[in-house]
Amino acid sequence: MSDTAPPPGFIPTQRTRVRRHPERAHYDRDTVFAILDAALLCHIGYVIDGRPYVTPTLFWREGERLYWHGSSASRMLRSQAAGIPVCVTVSHIDGLILARSAFRHSMNYRAVMAFGTASIVTDPRHKEAGFNAFIERLYPGRTGLMRDILPQELKATTLISMEIEEASAKIRAGGPLDLEADYGAECWAGMIPIAQRLGAPIPDPIAPPRTAPGPEIGHFAEGAALDQVLLAVARRVSPS
Amino acid sequence: MSDTAPPPGFIPTQRTRVRRHPERAHYDRDTVFAILDAALLCHIGYVIDGRPYVTPTLFWREGERLYWHGSSASRMLRSQAAGIPVCVTVSHIDGLILARSAFRHSMNYRAVMAFGTASIVTDPRHKEAGFNAFIERLYPGRTGLMRDILPQELKATTLISMEIEEASAKIRAGGPLDLEADYGAECWAGMIPIAQRLGAPIPDPIAPPRTAPGPEIGHFAEGAALDQVLLAVARRVSPS
Repeated sequence: MSDTAPPPGFIPTQRTRVRRHPERAHYDRDTVFAILDAALLCHIGYVIDGRPYVTPTLFWREGERLYWHGSSASRMLRSQAAGIPVCVTVSHIDGLILARSAFRHSMNYRAVMAFGTASIVTDPRHKEAGFNAFIERLYPGRTGLMRDILPQELKATTLISMEIEEASAKIRAGGPLDLEADYGAECWAGMIPIAQRLGAPIPDPIAPPRTAPGPEIGHFAEGAALDQVLLAVARRVSPS
Repeated sequence: MSDTAPPPGFIPTQRTRVRRHPERAHYDRDTVFAILDAALLCHIGYVIDGRPYVTPTLFWREGERLYWHGSSASRMLRSQAAGIPVCVTVSHIDGLILARSAFRHSMNYRAVMAFGTASIVTDPRHKEAGFNAFIERLYPGRTGLMRDILPQELKATTLISMEIEEASAKIRAGGPLDLEADYGAECWAGMIPIAQRLGAPIPDPIAPPRTAPGPEIGHFAEGAALDQVLLAVARRVSPS
């Protein structure tokens, strides 16, 4: 641990303290980061003219910072060099909860809400490094198989980043929580698991690839759960 | 078609017109509703004190209206009987796109952004019908196997609804779109499919159910894709 290591937990604030089902709340970095690193997609919330917008987009984490490609917030960000407040939400559905009363039906999930100020990465070298880092984060070694990013490509895309200022996680796991009085109900009760699973790779139909899938994508194995693959490769590349 | 049938398409507005990759945009109700009905989870964006919040929650659609259970927006809504502006975003990840240049890596997805004014459903009968409709939407016939919702349960939960005022869908499908100049790259290129798949049901570990899984949950078959199951059952129950 260096002197500059962040504290192990985020401090719950007015914005991040979980009020509904507080027993499901987690504020420690390990839990928050594991939920973020297991995901490919986040939902970015921002405000334009007082109205809310939510854009889904690919993202990745480096330490205390989240990165994503240009979204519709980019237009707004271009005129706001100081950045804009955003809420980045990441969620995984883990199962359907079938209870013995309508009221207690639910789902198992893992979710993080992270708040901060998003701004555009303007330095071209930082930007190029960012895009390559995303490829390497998913497919370690793959950028070495491809040409460099062209200047016009770099120009055509926006890279946005946000330091996580506040965050909380919320997790529901386990089975239904029925009232004992309902145990006699004549219906099945339990959990139906849900996971994002990978299928068999489909080669480019326009231009068939010259090689078979290489080791840099071998961990995206058919049938594997995406969240586990992403978490494992994130820990391998950047064990924070 | 009755005189009151909505037009087949949403009118693109300043808020909903897709600017990045407009060729991926869809504004017709069939496409928008199919993406909504194939999902269990949405991300609700709202504004408190000028700042954005994004909450993931279970939702369902009835005609032009979306419903969801209480979220952290509820506190705010309780003091705003007229409702608050929200953005409801739904997204499906369908695959990873592996291109022959870093810049053209992407993902296949289906997403909807729907805008409207969210308000609390206060009428207890409407509220009770809403909760039961959600169970029936997922598991047709299941409410008949359970006791009625208790008054205190109804009181403990908030039901929120929003009429869709504006909406747009965005879809990316197919394989990578590489530059011809890159076809010679010595790396695999194509698409790795991703789908939310169901696992084998796990009986309640606290109180083992008295019956096997019934026909009302038979469509949640092990290995099936959740989006297809949800879409099929939505069309069976409410073929709109």
